[in-house]
Amino acid sequence: MSNSEPKLITAPHVVKEELMAAGTWVKLEKTTYVDPAGNTRTWETVKRTTRQTTTEVDGLIDEGETAEAAALRELKEETGYKGEIAGVTPVTCLDPGLSNCTTQIVLININGDEVENIHPTQQLGEGEFVEVVLLPLDEFQMKVDDLLKKEKILVDAKVYIFAMGMVQAFFKPRELPVLKQ
Amino acid sequence: MSNSEPKLITAPHVVKEELMAAGTWVKLEKTTYVDPAGNTRTWETVKRTTRQTTTEVDGLIDEGETAEAAALRELKEETGYKGEIAGVTPVTCLDPGLSNCTTQIVLININGDEVENIHPTQQLGEGEFVEVVLLPLDEFQMKVDDLLKKEKILVDAKVYIFAMGMVQAFFKPRELPVLKQ
Repeated sequence: MSNSEPKLITAPHVVKEELMAAGTWVKLEKTTYVDPAGNTRTWETVKRTTRQTTTEVDGLIDEGETAEAAALRELKEETGYKGEIAGVTPVTCLDPGLSNCTTQIVLININGDEVENIHPTQQLGEGEFVEVVLLPLDEFQMKVDDLLKKEKILVDAKVYIFAMGMVQAFFKPRELPVLKQ
Repeated sequence: MSNSEPKLITAPHVVKEELMAAGTWVKLEKTTYVDPAGNTRTWETVKRTTRQTTTEVDGLIDEGETAEAAALRELKEETGYKGEIAGVTPVTCLDPGLSNCTTQIVLININGDEVENIHPTQQLGEGEFVEVVLLPLDEFQMKVDDLLKKEKILVDAKVYIFAMGMVQAFFKPRELPVLKQ
């Protein structure tokens, strides 16, 4: 191969990102990229304008705060409950065909016997409206289905798929002979 | 209350949606709404331009097709595997603080003993690049964590939360004394 031949590009990569429109919280970009076959293509990408420079995750995390601390703080503010961390996901993507938005999901246990949790009091911000709905974990999917029938609501895909994961593990043990952790 | 008094608006509702920018696949709108306290506020909402009029769900569903049929078709095209429906979510939202985008998640079993599944062949479209990764369900969360350490990838929140749901049901049976279906 002589030096005058064009260099082959093997790894897919972004060539440029052009701003199409920017609101206060959301912007729309035109992404030009080279695909794994070497073809130049375009995509439209949504980004939040509010992502902080110190973190890779979008959401309600204050500067310097961990996802776990943010989740406990928001739970307390929006539901009044004091919780304990039971698990946290890595940084995950929410709708990668549409946006670069990411989140960490935090699993929290609430001890109903704790004094603070007997009469929980919300501390909602201006313009925040949160109705707390308590559902039994052992009937979670059924109770969500009941709510969907009764009320004009949408449930988040992550809530529903968590319920399906529990049912999968519980009712199909032969497909998970020894679940390992 | 006399007829001349302004009528109280009690239910929150959208007043208007103004187009800020439209690409080929994605548009950005400014939403003006009245909140449950009666205050007029604005939000920025992302929508796909491609949602079909016959469905409430975004995604890869062809006109008149069910979510289940679309999932089996896409699975076959993108992985080569022939599957059987194990479950399907209702229409759920993906990132409701950002967009109106919705999806149905379909759980599919693949019978590895079927002739068609012994040498699966992908039928990828122009510009589609799909690498199939098979992970054991009984170590799903661990194997995803391993992949995240080794490769520069992001995992979808719904995949990870499904793994967490299985672990929750399997390892914390005391918190789910009798899971009901």
